[in-house]
Amino acid sequence: MPSQPSDTSTTCGNTEYGRKSFKRSRSHFPDRITADGRDGWPVEAGRYRLVASRACPWASRALISRRLLGLEDALSLALVDPLQDDRSWRFTLDPDGRDPVLGIRFLSEAYDAREKDYPGGVSVPAIVDVPSGKLVTNDYQQITLDLATEWRALHRAGAPDLYPEALREEMDVVMAGVYRDVNNGVYRAGFATGQSEYEAAFHDLFRRLDLLSERLSEQRYLMGDTLTEADIRLFTTLVRFDAVYHGHFKCNRFKLAEDPVLWAYAKDLYQTPGFGDTVDFHHIKQHYYRVHTGINPTGVVPLGPDLSGWLAPHHREELGGRPFGDGTPPGPVPPEEEVPPSGHPERLRLGS
Amino acid sequence: MPSQPSDTSTTCGNTEYGRKSFKRSRSHFPDRITADGRDGWPVEAGRYRLVASRACPWASRALISRRLLGLEDALSLALVDPLQDDRSWRFTLDPDGRDPVLGIRFLSEAYDAREKDYPGGVSVPAIVDVPSGKLVTNDYQQITLDLATEWRALHRAGAPDLYPEALREEMDVVMAGVYRDVNNGVYRAGFATGQSEYEAAFHDLFRRLDLLSERLSEQRYLMGDTLTEADIRLFTTLVRFDAVYHGHFKCNRFKLAEDPVLWAYAKDLYQTPGFGDTVDFHHIKQHYYRVHTGINPTGVVPLGPDLSGWLAPHHREELGGRPFGDGTPPGPVPPEEEVPPSGHPERLRLGS
Repeated sequence: MPSQPSDTSTTCGNTEYGRKSFKRSRSHFPDRITADGRDGWPVEAGRYRLVASRACPWASRALISRRLLGLEDALSLALVDPLQDDRSWRFTLDPDGRDPVLGIRFLSEAYDAREKDYPGGVSVPAIVDVPSGKLVTNDYQQITLDLATEWRALHRAGAPDLYPEALREEMDVVMAGVYRDVNNGVYRAGFATGQSEYEAAFHDLFRRLDLLSERLSEQRYLMGDTLTEADIRLFTTLVRFDAVYHGHFKCNRFKLAEDPVLWAYAKDLYQTPGFGDTVDFHHIKQHYYRVHTGINPTGVVPLGPDLSGWLAPHHREELGGRPFGDGTPPGPVPPEEEVPPSGHPERLRLGS
Repeated sequence: MPSQPSDTSTTCGNTEYGRKSFKRSRSHFPDRITADGRDGWPVEAGRYRLVASRACPWASRALISRRLLGLEDALSLALVDPLQDDRSWRFTLDPDGRDPVLGIRFLSEAYDAREKDYPGGVSVPAIVDVPSGKLVTNDYQQITLDLATEWRALHRAGAPDLYPEALREEMDVVMAGVYRDVNNGVYRAGFATGQSEYEAAFHDLFRRLDLLSERLSEQRYLMGDTLTEADIRLFTTLVRFDAVYHGHFKCNRFKLAEDPVLWAYAKDLYQTPGFGDTVDFHHIKQHYYRVHTGINPTGVVPLGPDLSGWLAPHHREELGGRPFGDGTPPGPVPPEEEVPPSGHPERLRLGS
């Protein structure tokens, strides 16, 4: 009989791992930080802190949006250790294991400040109100849309419009399909405890990837000539595909590197300022292979694949396009937020 | 803490799985069947029965040798179920779950007939003396060499010389390297319970594959122009590489299909009579993913990869070569030994 994954406290984007039937729970704290402050949380420079893991695809959306929109100064960043313990996400990357701004050791402390003895999972991304230390939101589906729209007054000059009004109707449909079959589809496949559940997720995933590959064969980005939130959401799964989902989650009809269109598209994004400079492959691999002991009991982290291909030419510029529309690329990464060399693809070049 | 693989009764080519430090045990029954019968087991047509699993790489060597040498009539074949239970290899593929020639339900019965209450693992390949029902040998390293040399009087006309005297010294060196780093290397990687043990095996494996790829870049076979036992031994690992070792055993620097030389070489062999016609990809995948619950607790069997590439052109004939030397290819597979369609690569074509 198949045994069940034993990890129950791992939550990344409200993923509830380890339940009999894998499901992603509704966000428990769906408050919104808005321009008009209607939920009691007005947009304000320096007031909030984004807590994220570079391992987590849901949190990584926010890392990319924040970079593209130039919100680094307005919304500060706390990064958690890719390995949780039984108290969930930890600030063990910081001196003394404590976030220097919030002064806490575990993200759960911000959850508790908001709701005493909160019984649910502790997930990233999370936005915390610095003055009160309270969690404001962990609604990973809404956070980036709000960064793109509600935080507009704090965007850098030249920030792209990541959620253009004219495209929203179509974008929402595209993103819903990507969410169901790709973003969440890889988890459905990976955490399936039975063959038929796995196979359904596998077929949905690759059917969707085939459609996306076709869509992207003659246009540079999902919505046409210019980057949007839809590309961010697809990217965060694709960048993890060969490193973890292909083997660990058994999403193995092909490697991303074997689909010429999707591979070129993903490399193009990776090499665009604001995307690849948020990616830490070391955090990604450590997290998935060491935390999910229910599917990798030994905790051994594979040495492969060779990731240096992420830096190879992609030739997508031949399709034209205006990556930032009427805007401009973001500037350099703030030095204190640079991904360490251990997470770079060159460091994961293997042999020969 | 890493947990340990829990499967302790699985033995394929004397693999002892589930021990703290993975090791391959010495053959317990090293008797030899020889032309002069010096161990009490003379070569004799119809006297012995080869018990094999199409899942097992060690047993598959014997399946290929027997085909290439045309020993199908002289040495009959019993195939076991790819899934063992706690009594190990079973004849559950046969009517009433009983081998029609030996009349037994479990291979262990032949072991017991040889040595009452034999305490070791029950492994394939095994050769059983039909009249007495006793196991003669399970020495997977010697069996094929003896088929090639000691059984010569029973070979078909046109059988190739798989272990030519003039090449033995070099062949033994080549095969020792292939055994240590490749055949056994994938198991060392896959059953490693610690990171450093895994990494050592991984590096040995891919270093050796790089050397083999270079060796094969300008010559068609490992020993030159003509097939030998060395090719058989390398093939049985390569044919399982993308289907199981790449993901399940974390041998993922690259897929075989990503190394142009090794992939073409492996396809060339696969398409050579006597090689691919012994391979059952369904048995292979079922065995590894469902038996090794210590490394795949859910028992879910991946749908990928798409295996139809095994039938694609390989262009290795451009290197010349005389595959069977002065001999000829084997005739068609006896109908009762044909691999069922479920095990063919066309059936494992996936999407789109």
